[in-house]
Amino acid sequence: MTETQQTARSRTFTWTDPAEVAVQIGRLSGLETLQAMQDGRLPAPPILQLVGATGFEAEEGKVTVSMPAAEFHYNPLGSVHGGVIATLLDTAAGCTVHSTLPAGVGYTSLDLMTRFVRPVTVDSGVLRCEGGIISRGRRTAVAESHLYDERGKLLAHATSTCLIFELPQA
Amino acid sequence: MTETQQTARSRTFTWTDPAEVAVQIGRLSGLETLQAMQDGRLPAPPILQLVGATGFEAEEGKVTVSMPAAEFHYNPLGSVHGGVIATLLDTAAGCTVHSTLPAGVGYTSLDLMTRFVRPVTVDSGVLRCEGGIISRGRRTAVAESHLYDERGKLLAHATSTCLIFELPQA
Amino acid sequence: MTETQQTARSRTFTWTDPAEVAVQIGRLSGLETLQAMQDGRLPAPPILQLVGATGFEAEEGKVTVSMPAAEFHYNPLGSVHGGVIATLLDTAAGCTVHSTLPAGVGYTSLDLMTRFVRPVTVDSGVLRCEGGIISRGRRTAVAESHLYDERGKLLAHATSTCLIFELPQA
Amino acid sequence: MTETQQTARSRTFTWTDPAEVAVQIGRLSGLETLQAMQDGRLPAPPILQLVGATGFEAEEGKVTVSMPAAEFHYNPLGSVHGGVIATLLDTAAGCTVHSTLPAGVGYTSLDLMTRFVRPVTVDSGVLRCEGGIISRGRRTAVAESHLYDERGKLLAHATSTCLIFELPQA
Repeated sequence: MTETQQTARSRTFTWTDPAEVAVQIGRLSGLETLQAMQDGRLPAPPILQLVGATGFEAEEGKVTVSMPAAEFHYNPLGSVHGGVIATLLDTAAGCTVHSTLPAGVGYTSLDLMTRFVRPVTVDSGVLRCEGGIISRGRRTAVAESHLYDERGKLLAHATSTCLIFELPQA
Repeated sequence: MTETQQTARSRTFTWTDPAEVAVQIGRLSGLETLQAMQDGRLPAPPILQLVGATGFEAEEGKVTVSMPAAEFHYNPLGSVHGGVIATLLDTAAGCTVHSTLPAGVGYTSLDLMTRFVRPVTVDSGVLRCEGGIISRGRRTAVAESHLYDERGKLLAHATSTCLIFELPQA
Repeated sequence: MTETQQTARSRTFTWTDPAEVAVQIGRLSGLETLQAMQDGRLPAPPILQLVGATGFEAEEGKVTVSMPAAEFHYNPLGSVHGGVIATLLDTAAGCTVHSTLPAGVGYTSLDLMTRFVRPVTVDSGVLRCEGGIISRGRRTAVAESHLYDERGKLLAHATSTCLIFELPQA
Repeated sequence: MTETQQTARSRTFTWTDPAEVAVQIGRLSGLETLQAMQDGRLPAPPILQLVGATGFEAEEGKVTVSMPAAEFHYNPLGSVHGGVIATLLDTAAGCTVHSTLPAGVGYTSLDLMTRFVRPVTVDSGVLRCEGGIISRGRRTAVAESHLYDERGKLLAHATSTCLIFELPQA
């Protein structure tokens, strides 16, 4: 086997025990929970620390996540891996559904249908992912999300169906 | 703002400059590239270091990725985020298409349609994600992937269409 | 406007008032309902008369529909329209979920994700569409279906999530 | 086997030999082709006769199809079959992509991802299905379509990726 000289890079990230957060979430409406994350009163979930998200804004029916595209997101083809793109699209779509739910009501994503429109690289800059509602029923909701590069070009699109249900009483 | 006592955890990971890998990929067939990653002759791509994948096996028409479910993959709901699940499903599906391509032929994923079947938590153990081919045409290929927990229960499923094209001559 | 001489073709089909069928369905299990259709004890639904389906076979977890590809299915591009393909895939996937349900339990399709693999024309002969189960949970099921031409070549593939629920008591 | 008294209904529809249309399509741009259908200078494709579409309007980047919901569209559950819904969504999405193509350029749909939002019945009245463009690249385009009932309520949504290619010279 040929020796190959390789340039190693390294990154350290931190996160908070998710159990500490989960306790508090049950008592709040979806929008209150998301705005508590936006304001730092609740810690960001581990996944957003993992991928390096830097911005999070929530209003009812619209949640936006921002993240600088980074080399540590790359696939072997030299661009941001589809799974990182799906992470942003899933977060924006799911949180947008969450933003419409009262306290005591939970949701779970049944699927995420992602379309990759353009390659994403570090040159794409700070990515911006916006969620919106296509349909909000009693038992299910359909959300969509658009991922844009720093100049506003569409990079990817997704739709997702979430199941909505009463949370068990504490 | 209320002070909250939070238990911080931390993780450090490393990766290799992807440009060093890209140079070598063009000269190999898909299967040769993937088997070089499996054997460590080529470094794992950053994305697999990011999520903490621990296993990678490639044969023609079937690629398997393994990863222990971890707390740092979590969403605010207390389970592994759909984006991490999509990362494994996209890797297995895309690499399975790649495993069928000769040298000089490239591919790009047009989409990833992910269905979440069961919640994934650290109790799911070491996840195993297997890719397979549904259809392999001249211009496009359709792949699927199944994600299983450590006991072999299905956790998620995806299908993906990849565009196949001649790489520009070096 | 220029007069164009055009060769008109015509087709007549018949169907049964669906309300007469619906009454009987509630009392049977899914498999009993589907096998009653297979045997002609229940009439085929209007949709299968509309597209000209000629075969229907049901066992638990596997439903197959057959239909000769016909000119009256064509889009302007000169091949069978994707909606006719989706009709077969949706029927096979949905009925396969139905075949697993006891009496008193209903289902509804939340989505149908169709991939068109090869063009379908009258030369494709009698199409055969087979449904299967990917996952069967308590509240949701995921089914898939494959569409083949008369020689067994794959023409299209779909997956579908169905919501499962208790039917209101009669 | 119990005799069942069943009320049979019948419908006859006509269509034009699609080969007569195909000859003329190659010479026109997408929008010219679609507007010739709208004006009746080209006959409607068989599929639109099959399902009973009554309206068709095309402008660049937006195609709308109308169809009264009818009993002959029904599945055994007593509502319009998902395949008929997919037929309208696929037509609107595909034709919208077509409306952006110059003469000599063709397209083919790779997939159709349909979400069923509300049940469709004859009470839904005249359905209206509108296509739009999400992304228009050089080799692929992503379109979406929304299906509404007569009062403007959303019934279903789809996205579709089309492959775009040069047509062989005549």
